[in-house]
Amino acid sequence: MVGPLSGTRVLDFTWVLAGPYATMVLADLGAEVIKVEPPNGGDFSRHFGPYFDGDVSHYFLSINRGKKSITVNLKTKRGNEIIRDLVKQADVLVENFVPGTMARLGLAYEQLREINPRLIYASASGFGHSGPYMDRPAYDVIVQAMAGTMSLTGEPGRPSVRVGYSIGDMGASLFTVIGVLAALNERERSGLGQHVDIAMLDSQVALLENAVTRYFCSGKVPAKIGSRHPSIAPFQAYRSKDGEFVLGAANDRQWQAVCSALGLRHLLEDERFLSNDLRVTHADEMEAEIEAVTTRMTTDECLARLMEAQVPCGPVQTIDKVVQDPQLAAREMFVEVEHPRAGRLKVTGSPLKLSRTPGRVERASPDLGEHTAEVLGELLGYSPAEVEALREQGIV
Amino acid sequence: MVGPLSGTRVLDFTWVLAGPYATMVLADLGAEVIKVEPPNGGDFSRHFGPYFDGDVSHYFLSINRGKKSITVNLKTKRGNEIIRDLVKQADVLVENFVPGTMARLGLAYEQLREINPRLIYASASGFGHSGPYMDRPAYDVIVQAMAGTMSLTGEPGRPSVRVGYSIGDMGASLFTVIGVLAALNERERSGLGQHVDIAMLDSQVALLENAVTRYFCSGKVPAKIGSRHPSIAPFQAYRSKDGEFVLGAANDRQWQAVCSALGLRHLLEDERFLSNDLRVTHADEMEAEIEAVTTRMTTDECLARLMEAQVPCGPVQTIDKVVQDPQLAAREMFVEVEHPRAGRLKVTGSPLKLSRTPGRVERASPDLGEHTAEVLGELLGYSPAEVEALREQGIV
Repeated sequence: MVGPLSGTRVLDFTWVLAGPYATMVLADLGAEVIKVEPPNGGDFSRHFGPYFDGDVSHYFLSINRGKKSITVNLKTKRGNEIIRDLVKQADVLVENFVPGTMARLGLAYEQLREINPRLIYASASGFGHSGPYMDRPAYDVIVQAMAGTMSLTGEPGRPSVRVGYSIGDMGASLFTVIGVLAALNERERSGLGQHVDIAMLDSQVALLENAVTRYFCSGKVPAKIGSRHPSIAPFQAYRSKDGEFVLGAANDRQWQAVCSALGLRHLLEDERFLSNDLRVTHADEMEAEIEAVTTRMTTDECLARLMEAQVPCGPVQTIDKVVQDPQLAAREMFVEVEHPRAGRLKVTGSPLKLSRTPGRVERASPDLGEHTAEVLGELLGYSPAEVEALREQGIV
Repeated sequence: MVGPLSGTRVLDFTWVLAGPYATMVLADLGAEVIKVEPPNGGDFSRHFGPYFDGDVSHYFLSINRGKKSITVNLKTKRGNEIIRDLVKQADVLVENFVPGTMARLGLAYEQLREINPRLIYASASGFGHSGPYMDRPAYDVIVQAMAGTMSLTGEPGRPSVRVGYSIGDMGASLFTVIGVLAALNERERSGLGQHVDIAMLDSQVALLENAVTRYFCSGKVPAKIGSRHPSIAPFQAYRSKDGEFVLGAANDRQWQAVCSALGLRHLLEDERFLSNDLRVTHADEMEAEIEAVTTRMTTDECLARLMEAQVPCGPVQTIDKVVQDPQLAAREMFVEVEHPRAGRLKVTGSPLKLSRTPGRVERASPDLGEHTAEVLGELLGYSPAEVEALREQGIV
């Protein structure tokens, strides 16, 4: 199915996570994404196990499905020329090296816009292309730590924990996609490209939402509060006989429904819980009252009662349950793709549901250099023999 | 400064979080965002304290800066007509009600595309506009629980914790922006709008990255691992004498640098830590060895040594430190805006750094109905007296 970015060509110099996830979203939307990898070994993350049959990395698959792969040695003069020829035919370039890397290869934005003024050039990096920390490398955990995310995540009085997936990278990925798409829109009017400079640290801070203004307003430093919400209660995980579930009651009506559902109507008269503010203050005592009941029931029983009373609620699901969730099945959030060596593999679908041009998740991750001959043939007119000669010289 | 979406008009029916954050990003990019609120009280989140001077909610400010506010009672026939007249002049509509709400008001996509076939209509909801759970309300914590995020976040053997900001909402916000921008791009070619249907649950699952393929590949259910990475070590938070810091060593070279920096060169010979896989297996023992040294030094001392050795590292910063971070200052990630009643307020800046059309964070959050007369006057030609008459009738 044709996606909204059908006809858009992306030259992809990304590796590991923040960059590859961004270009995968562009591929899901129908863009032609040509991933450029070094001939020896390719993207590091091809070597992150465990592996499917045929040494296909689960990690590489999860963020590179739907792309083409070509190998080019950027450090050779000839390889560099090939890239510059491809840049002339690209709409978008995405890279996530430490700032300065592309410039040393002669491939910085300022160098490439000379040969393609319409090029949109996106850089995702740890700290951005300006400022005192710009040269520092960053990993997800460093960004989660420095941005304040870890200081908000975990139990009170216990060590800070990392969000269990790499939101430090993924936040930057999504803002990179937004920057690219906004620049593509603008190019329709101006005819000109531009540089999109996205930092993991900036992106993570931008996601902190009210924690920042709350601090500016109150002077109180937001702290770790387990599964709770800073200003709504009850709104957290509770233990049942066989696991954990969550419920959220954002107003008095929903609080009344919680109490009715769980046989706790006496709490409605309890002075500690008369308003949302009081419930936030007395959340520990409220938790004890609620768990005294819920730990005698299974999660299913608790949820059935709460659902009946129209209280927003749900189970704390582990990944094995998530991949079987009927709602996610109905939304086609897990789909099969065919890998030439590993066979049919299940991957996560796209959350971008567009009614007329829905995009696609069709292909698995490419093998290293799988499309070198095809891309150099179709875009640059190289014959198979010419590509083979370049391969023998270690250029592609 | 003119942003890339300058000239794009967004009619905004959003409230609380997932929707408002999405339209704020569009406003940062230069779109004209007209927030439509009920005349009595407006968006609920105007009443989430603490407040700045003049009863300005920190929460509402954090996700509504840069927008215009008009009040329209959607349940009156006249109010409904006003909306339909505005829809004719809008490029984008965004709403985040429970599915079915807009249809009951005669404002579903199918109803509005009749009067504006170019309209891009984005719905952000808990579970999406299809599937068995579509009618259920969702809050952030419910989505974090059901998507598997909470099952990955927290300490081993202890209760699941919520990511300390509302990533369940924010994930959907960013995908909503991506869907809208992709559809705007497509409209340049087709001349047609479409419905963008984004679910919080889908979006959260899409962000789990390799946790899903890792489960499909290995059959092992990913679990909570504190501040650690599932497949890289050392890559976590460590305690110092006066706090916590993080470091990440993704390969043997960086592991050697860690040991040199912290005076732990004897660990390089230790058979438990000879490879990344072994370090992941023995992460507890490695933590004990590392903390035996780091708890005798301050965070600043640890980081100075690690930085010198070029090990990626950083402090675990609380929000009071985050807002003073020199890198974030250089990136203009905290900016002042003028509020008509509360004066100058500091808000989070935009992480979208575009070189030629950088966008803007210029205005504070609007007062309720602040722009009703302006918008109805400019777009629909209503006189001040007509707007006043509508106001007296409770229509605006």
